[in-house]
Amino acid sequence: MPVEVLDNELTDQRLNQLTQALGSGMFVHVRSMLHDMAASDVAFILESSPPRTRQVLWQLIDQDHTGEILDELGEELKDNLIKQMSPERVAKAAARMDTDDLAYILRSLPDSVFNQVLQSMTSQDRTRVEQALSYPDDTAGSLMNTDTVTLRPDVNIDVILRYLRIRGELPEATDTLYVVDKQDSFLGGVRISDLLTCDPNASIRDIMASKLEGIPVGMSDSEVAQLFERHDWLSAPVIGDDNRLLGRITIDDVVDVIREDAEHSMMGMAGMDDDADTFGPVIKSTLQRSLWLTINLFAALLAASVSNMFEGTLEQFATIAILMTIVPSMGGVAGNQTLALVIRGIALGQIGQSNSRWLIGKELAIGFLNGVLWSVLVFLAIWFWKDDIALGGLIGGAMLINMTVAGFAGASIPLLLKKMNIDPALAGGMVLTTVTDVIGLFAFLGLATFFLLN
Amino acid sequence: MPVEVLDNELTDQRLNQLTQALGSGMFVHVRSMLHDMAASDVAFILESSPPRTRQVLWQLIDQDHTGEILDELGEELKDNLIKQMSPERVAKAAARMDTDDLAYILRSLPDSVFNQVLQSMTSQDRTRVEQALSYPDDTAGSLMNTDTVTLRPDVNIDVILRYLRIRGELPEATDTLYVVDKQDSFLGGVRISDLLTCDPNASIRDIMASKLEGIPVGMSDSEVAQLFERHDWLSAPVIGDDNRLLGRITIDDVVDVIREDAEHSMMGMAGMDDDADTFGPVIKSTLQRSLWLTINLFAALLAASVSNMFEGTLEQFATIAILMTIVPSMGGVAGNQTLALVIRGIALGQIGQSNSRWLIGKELAIGFLNGVLWSVLVFLAIWFWKDDIALGGLIGGAMLINMTVAGFAGASIPLLLKKMNIDPALAGGMVLTTVTDVIGLFAFLGLATFFLLN
Repeated sequence: MPVEVLDNELTDQRLNQLTQALGSGMFVHVRSMLHDMAASDVAFILESSPPRTRQVLWQLIDQDHTGEILDELGEELKDNLIKQMSPERVAKAAARMDTDDLAYILRSLPDSVFNQVLQSMTSQDRTRVEQALSYPDDTAGSLMNTDTVTLRPDVNIDVILRYLRIRGELPEATDTLYVVDKQDSFLGGVRISDLLTCDPNASIRDIMASKLEGIPVGMSDSEVAQLFERHDWLSAPVIGDDNRLLGRITIDDVVDVIREDAEHSMMGMAGMDDDADTFGPVIKSTLQRSLWLTINLFAALLAASVSNMFEGTLEQFATIAILMTIVPSMGGVAGNQTLALVIRGIALGQIGQSNSRWLIGKELAIGFLNGVLWSVLVFLAIWFWKDDIALGGLIGGAMLINMTVAGFAGASIPLLLKKMNIDPALAGGMVLTTVTDVIGLFAFLGLATFFLLN
Repeated sequence: MPVEVLDNELTDQRLNQLTQALGSGMFVHVRSMLHDMAASDVAFILESSPPRTRQVLWQLIDQDHTGEILDELGEELKDNLIKQMSPERVAKAAARMDTDDLAYILRSLPDSVFNQVLQSMTSQDRTRVEQALSYPDDTAGSLMNTDTVTLRPDVNIDVILRYLRIRGELPEATDTLYVVDKQDSFLGGVRISDLLTCDPNASIRDIMASKLEGIPVGMSDSEVAQLFERHDWLSAPVIGDDNRLLGRITIDDVVDVIREDAEHSMMGMAGMDDDADTFGPVIKSTLQRSLWLTINLFAALLAASVSNMFEGTLEQFATIAILMTIVPSMGGVAGNQTLALVIRGIALGQIGQSNSRWLIGKELAIGFLNGVLWSVLVFLAIWFWKDDIALGGLIGGAMLINMTVAGFAGASIPLLLKKMNIDPALAGGMVLTTVTDVIGLFAFLGLATFFLLN
C-alpha cells in the first residue's frame, strides 16, 4: 500500500522508529532505513530532529546522497552542515546538485574552502557554477538552471521526435522546449504536449508560441514568483539583456520562493529570521533573538519615559496607573491588523502609487470608526467597573485618539519604510508598537493630567 | 518588446493608465484595454482597485471572460462579485471555469441561486459539478480536476502516440498520463516526456512508473501541499478508497494552498482573516476586525485587574506604575518569537510526538537564558535611570520569571491548542499575550509589594 507512507502521521511514526532505533544503537538498521528513503524525506526528518539526533543521522547518510539531501534543506541547517564537511566531500556532493542550489551553497562558504571546492570539481562543473555565481542572489539568474533543450525554428516535428528519441530522457520538469536562432536569441517555445499531438509534418515555427515571454535575468525572485503564480506557469525561459536564452526557471524553485516570502512576512513581524531553524541549538537561537529584544527594550523604556512625564498624576491617582495599559494595548492590536494587511499587499505587489493614498484613507477611516465603537464600550466598561464617569470619559477619549492614529500609522509606516528601502515586514511591527504605545500613554495620561489635576 | 509588460512597475503604470482613463470617462478605451489583457492580469487589477473603480471595471469586462477572471480572484472579492451577478451570468461563466473553482463558487451561493445556476447549466457541466461538490472543502477532492487522460497498461507506445495525435490538445499542465485497468483502478503513470523519448515498440507497462503514489481523496489540502513541495511534483493522481482513479491535482492549485496556508499564519497572528480584501469597503472591514478587538479588550481588562490587586503599592510608588509596562512588553516579544517559530513548524508538519517535548524544553531554556541576559541589562538600565538599586533588582527578577514563562508558554500554547483542535495561528497570539501580560504584571507588582511594603 504505497499510499500509506504519504500520511503525515506515518512520517511522524517513521521519525519515532528512527529515534528509537538510534536510541538503542541500531545504527546499521537506521542506515538502511535512510538509504531507502527519498532525499526529500531524509531532509524533512533532519529538519524535524534535535541537534544531537541530527549529528548522528548525518553521519549515517550515504555520501552519494549528500548533494540531493542538501538541496532539500532549509538555509540555516544547510549552512551548518556544510561548515562541518570537508571541501572534498562538498565537491563530491556538488556534482549531484542543481546549479542554482550549488551556487547558493558556494556563496556561503569561507573563501579558502570555496576555492578548494572549486578546484576539486570537474572543469565542466566549474564552468557551470562560475556562471551561476555571476548572478546576484535573489534574482531570476540565481533561480535558473541551464539544462534547457533548444530547437531551431525551421526543423520539422518528425525530425525533432527522432532527435529526442536518440537523445533520451529529458531534464526533470521539462514542459517546454525553447526555440532559438543561430545566435542563441530566444524566439519562443514549444510545449512537449504539443509535440505529441500535432501533425509531424509541421515545422517548429508553425506550432511554436512566439508570444511566450522571457524573464529578464536580473528580475527579483519575488517578481518571478508573482508571474508564475499569476500565469500558472510550470517553467519559464530566462533571457539576457541581448535577448539570448540563458536558462530556465522551474516551478519547484518558485514554490520555495513563495514559501520563503510568505514566511518572511510572518516570521519578520514576530521579530524572527525566516531561515530560523525550529530545532536549532539553544545558545545560537538565544543570540539570534537578542537583537529584537534589544530594540524592544528601548521601545519599552521610551514608553516608560512617557509615563515618567506624568509622575505627578500617577502619584495622586493609582487608578490611572491601573488602567493605563488598556489604551496602548487596543491601539497596538488595531494597528497590527492594518499592518499585516498592508505588508501582505506589498508582498503581493498589489500596492502602488495609484492606490496607496486610497488605502491609507481607508485604514484611517476604519481606525476612526473602530475608535468611536471602542471608546463607547470602554467608557461603559470603566464607568461600570470604577463607578467613575469622568474616568470612563478620559479613557474613551484617549482610545479614540489612539485607534485613529493606529489605523493611519499601520498603513503609512510600512509604505514609508518601503520607500526608504527598509523591509516593512521586519521593522514595521516594532515601529508601529512604539507609536501606538507612546501615543496611547500620552493621550490617556495627558488627558488625565489636564482634567484631573487642573 | 513583450518582456517589458512583465515588470511590476509597468503593472502599476497600467493601473495608473486605467485609473486615468476611467477618471476621464474613456470607457470604450478601458474596455478594449481590459479585453487585450490576460484573465490573471485583469484579476490582479481588480484586486488592487478601490471598491468604486472595481464596480466600473467589472461592468466593462467582457461577459465571455467572466469565468476565467473569477477563477483568479481572492475569495472575499470573488464572493462579493458573484453575489451581484444574475444566476444566468453565473451559469454562463461556470462553463469556462475549472471544476474545483466552480464547486468553490457554488458552495458560497444562497440555495435559491445555487439551484437556478445548476439548472441553467448543460447536463454535462451539472454532473461534473455535482461530483466535485460531494467532496468536503479543504480536501484533495476539492482541489481535484477530472480532466485526466488515461491509458491501459498493455498497449504499445506507438498506438498511444497515434491516439494522442487524433485526440488533439492535452489538458493544461498535463505532465503525466495515468494508467488504469478495466475497473478504473489506478496502476501507475507515464510521463509525457518519456513518451517522446522511449522506444515506440515498448508497451505502456514497460515504461510506466508503478511506484507512483496516488493521493487519497480525503487527504487535507495542506498535507497535499506538503507532499507536492517535498517531492517537487507538477501533478498527482487522486484515488478513492477502492483505489479507483478519480482525477488529478495540479501544482497551480497547490501553489494557491501554499500561499493561503502561509498567509493564514501571518494574518491569523495579527488577528486577521487570510481572505481579508486589502481594498475592501470600510464598514465591512471595520466589523471584521471587531471580534479580535473585543477579545483583546477582555485581555486588557484582565491585565488591568491584576494591577488593580496592587492598588496600595501603586498609590505609594508612582515609579512602579511608570515601569510596570516594561516587563510584560519584553515577555510578549520573547513569547511571540517562540510562537511564530512553533506555528510555522506545525504548519510545515515538522512537529510531532517525537520532538514536541524536546522543543518545549529548548524554548524554555532559551527563555531562561534570555531572561538572565535581560534581567541584568534591565537591572543596570533602571539602576542608572532611577538611581535605585532595589528597584532595578525587582524589575530584573520579574523579567527573569516572565521571560522563562514566555518561552515555555510560547511553545506549549500552540501545541496545546492544536491538540484541542483550535487553530494555533488564530488563537495563539492572544492567549500568549494574556499570559505574558498577567504573569509579567503579577511578578513585578507582586515582588514590589512584597519587598517595598513589608
